[in-house]
Amino acid sequence: MSVEGIHAQDKNLVVRIAKLVIDSGQLESYKAALKEHAETAVRVEPGVLNLYAVYEKNKPTHVTVFEIYANNEAYKAHLLTPHFLKYKTGTKEMVKSLELVETVPIALETKYKISN
Amino acid sequence: MSVEGIHAQDKNLVVRIAKLVIDSGQLESYKAALKEHAETAVRVEPGVLNLYAVYEKNKPTHVTVFEIYANNEAYKAHLLTPHFLKYKTGTKEMVKSLELVETVPIALETKYKISN
Repeated sequence: MSVEGIHAQDKNLVVRIAKLVIDSGQLESYKAALKEHAETAVRVEPGVLNLYAVYEKNKPTHVTVFEIYANNEAYKAHLLTPHFLKYKTGTKEMVKSLELVETVPIALETKYKISN
Repeated sequence: MSVEGIHAQDKNLVVRIAKLVIDSGQLESYKAALKEHAETAVRVEPGVLNLYAVYEKNKPTHVTVFEIYANNEAYKAHLLTPHFLKYKTGTKEMVKSLELVETVPIALETKYKISN
């Protein structure tokens, strides 16, 4: 990739927030699966730019993932990767609810520049 | 800074999600103020690592900011900067509600490395 960073004005970016509620008895397993998935996706897929996953301090079963893909093709390709399918199948019984919120960037400011 | 990236296991990180609802008549002014604030904060403050601000496609008055600070001292210093105070004062009448959610990272994966 030749870009120097993520630009909020890039109209091709797909920026999404996933809000999940996880079964409390399976929370540790879920977090391990999500962590592995995020690391793999950002490492091996050129179009997966950011996967920031957190849980709420006061509601640890409430997980939010802030996702940035280079474009819609990158997002669609991501859904067919072995690591995504493994994550999706493996966590199916752990996820009590999932809401996907499509968003538009206002600012995507980071101290980080592209590394590959 | 000497780090090579953001590490989810860094216990000092302050990772927060701000959820705002903006007065619809002042939305463009609000977005401009937020964008200017985010750009300035990440550029001039060493401990402000990420400010990702988006609005919902289906609810444009609903804004989310995903914030990462190097540590609590950096966060507290941020609150006293001229650009933050300008933003906070200037947008006071535009913000209908603000919820701050403290979070714990599971994964903070990005293609970007530290640039300063």
